Amino acid sequence: MKKYRLMVPGPTPTPPEVTAAAVLPVEDERTASYARVFTRVVDNLRRALFTRNDVLLFTSSMTGAFEGALQNLLSPGDGVLVASNGAFGERWSDMAVRFGLKVTEVRHDWGRPLDLERIAAAARTPGLVAAIAVHCETSTGMVNDIEGFAAATAPLVSVVDSASGVGACELRTDAWGVDVVVGGCQKALMTPPGLSFASIGPRAWQLHERARLPRYYFDWDEAREALRADVPRTPWTPAITLINQLDVALRQLHEEGMEAVFARHAELGRLARAGVGGLGLELFSPDEDRHASVTAARLPHGIDGGALVDHLLEHYGIQLTGAQGPLAGEVLRIGHCGHIDVFDVLTALSALELGLADFGHRVEPGSAVAAALRAHAAHHEPATVRTLITTPPTAALTVTEAS
Amino acid sequence: MKKYRLMVPGPTPTPPEVTAAAVLPVEDERTASYARVFTRVVDNLRRALFTRNDVLLFTSSMTGAFEGALQNLLSPGDGVLVASNGAFGERWSDMAVRFGLKVTEVRHDWGRPLDLERIAAAARTPGLVAAIAVHCETSTGMVNDIEGFAAATAPLVSVVDSASGVGACELRTDAWGVDVVVGGCQKALMTPPGLSFASIGPRAWQLHERARLPRYYFDWDEAREALRADVPRTPWTPAITLINQLDVALRQLHEEGMEAVFARHAELGRLARAGVGGLGLELFSPDEDRHASVTAARLPHGIDGGALVDHLLEHYGIQLTGAQGPLAGEVLRIGHCGHIDVFDVLTALSALELGLADFGHRVEPGSAVAAALRAHAAHHEPATVRTLITTPPTAALTVTEAS
Repeated sequence: MKKYRLMVPGPTPTPPEVTAAAVLPVEDERTASYARVFTRVVDNLRRALFTRNDVLLFTSSMTGAFEGALQNLLSPGDGVLVASNGAFGERWSDMAVRFGLKVTEVRHDWGRPLDLERIAAAARTPGLVAAIAVHCETSTGMVNDIEGFAAATAPLVSVVDSASGVGACELRTDAWGVDVVVGGCQKALMTPPGLSFASIGPRAWQLHERARLPRYYFDWDEAREALRADVPRTPWTPAITLINQLDVALRQLHEEGMEAVFARHAELGRLARAGVGGLGLELFSPDEDRHASVTAARLPHGIDGGALVDHLLEHYGIQLTGAQGPLAGEVLRIGHCGHIDVFDVLTALSALELGLADFGHRVEPGSAVAAALRAHAAHHEPATVRTLITTPPTAALTVTEAS
Repeated sequence: MKKYRLMVPGPTPTPPEVTAAAVLPVEDERTASYARVFTRVVDNLRRALFTRNDVLLFTSSMTGAFEGALQNLLSPGDGVLVASNGAFGERWSDMAVRFGLKVTEVRHDWGRPLDLERIAAAARTPGLVAAIAVHCETSTGMVNDIEGFAAATAPLVSVVDSASGVGACELRTDAWGVDVVVGGCQKALMTPPGLSFASIGPRAWQLHERARLPRYYFDWDEAREALRADVPRTPWTPAITLINQLDVALRQLHEEGMEAVFARHAELGRLARAGVGGLGLELFSPDEDRHASVTAARLPHGIDGGALVDHLLEHYGIQLTGAQGPLAGEVLRIGHCGHIDVFDVLTALSALELGLADFGHRVEPGSAVAAALRAHAAHHEPATVRTLITTPPTAALTVTEAS
């Protein structure tokens, strides 16, 4: 018997209450009762994004909402700035090229912080109308300075891909002046995959007015019109059961409180980084609290990341993941966003220690967890425990015999 | 207490086993174990479509797969023929215009059969490359002659929208020479909404080679490449839990057998039409066995369809639906595709009879069900019943007293 433990940066495991909501009966989405759920989901998404902007929900992988942002903001030949420092940033450039856009990519080495001066200079390139950055670069665990990015590209409409960021890492959409945030619900929002969203501010709606890229399914006007109908809905039949699940997940997050949610993820990141350090591995994600969603580590020379991931799944039931592109084989990633707690991270660290030992990389047993718990102790007072007072039972069991 | 009974032509209720599959743990879609599920789903979709063509699965409402067919087959300025006889056929024209295509629409009155001679003549218009028709026109219940349509437009690449057709009404993709079939899984395929698909034959792949409409999320090359990878998958994280559910649903359909599935839907259509006739209403769906997925009826003068639908839901828990466009308010539709049986249809008919009486349209109580059961009797020998032989119990209950 092996328990399956999913610890990749999306998809992520769902809380039991979110899982259970999947079996609510399928309901026609054009009813008033369903509209109440849908409206609540949209409102709670806005709260999670710290925005008063419109939030539109789509039935698609996140990539769909990304494509939709390009289609709804731009016209063929428009210039876009892409600030990239990992696989997902670079993918935005590919996507923009496919749509006939002129891409000014400010490319950084993977895992390097955004150079805001270079970005601000590039933002003055004539012909640019929008600027794109990734919030949490899932490929490296790097969480970018979105407040700085939005300021550096202020004259342009800013588009932030917060796939593995939203619900894990601080993102103050309105306070930071981010015009568009795109993301999905299968990472820190603790819902099975299939839903994506876009939050759209006034400057983005203005740019949208003149956007000429052809579109239909992800059209923002259609979605906004349906959202503002008497019975709010999506223009096309949505993933009804997933929306029921997202409703439960968002309510749980807001009950915990977004600040507490961010703090929990920061703590998980600290433990994961400390544990990986305890194994003697070099961190790829920088050792700062903001990098709270994914931890990436360079593997010891001679250990192949793909083989190690397969081994951890096969022998220990622990699902971690390798890396993409130039890091393939060399880097291992632990996802710790969503319905993940301290003990899940400790479990992943123990499994990683065992797996590395199987591949010949030995450390003192327990090194990973010990390092993680030291990091925990450094940030936490011990929890207060009430003294337990045991009292004798107040009544003996009375047995009445039936006649 | 009111039981909610969903009887619209999508979304539809799910069988208990399909419902239960939603709570299987979310698994990383890049594992071999998940690839087995995914591969089985694709194979079973091909069997349901009677095709050896590639079938690509998308996480989206059906509209997404429709958009994808245009994007992947056509270039700006290409000519497409659209044969329409209802809301969804006409929507294809709108969608094609949005993508800068030249549309030759052979428009019929809603609920009229396709005029294959007119279509064949229009198919000779210079500049046309593809021809589009709807299999089951959900807005009217009309099931179109797709075999005839494919023959009439043989020189063009045929695209068939089988949204509420697939899994309910006969569709022999390869035998009939249909190049592309697009549809989704939330109607007769008995799965919650969120998945769509396209089956793509060799002539369609050839046309795809030169298609220049910009696309990314629904790109067929990306999807085919991922499907053919060592570990088959989708290019972007799919709706994993919905695919698990579709897996169960498709296995149930194939266990029943597609011919039996078609016969079951034909029977439900017969009962629904007979029952509506028993209420003295005029049928909008023609009274032929092929119209097996949705039954549409004209309401008595003075009864508003929207108000009646709301009343049936509020007072009886029965979810039927009205009509769109020019039929709004005048027509009521009963969906009977998917996990629906004879008794569900009888229930809907009883509720409709009660609801109409509440609005002043009275008939002899039980008229709807009586007419439906007469139609049933006309097509069925009584089921054979074994004579029950009751035998006395072979042993008395022995009670052993504990010491």
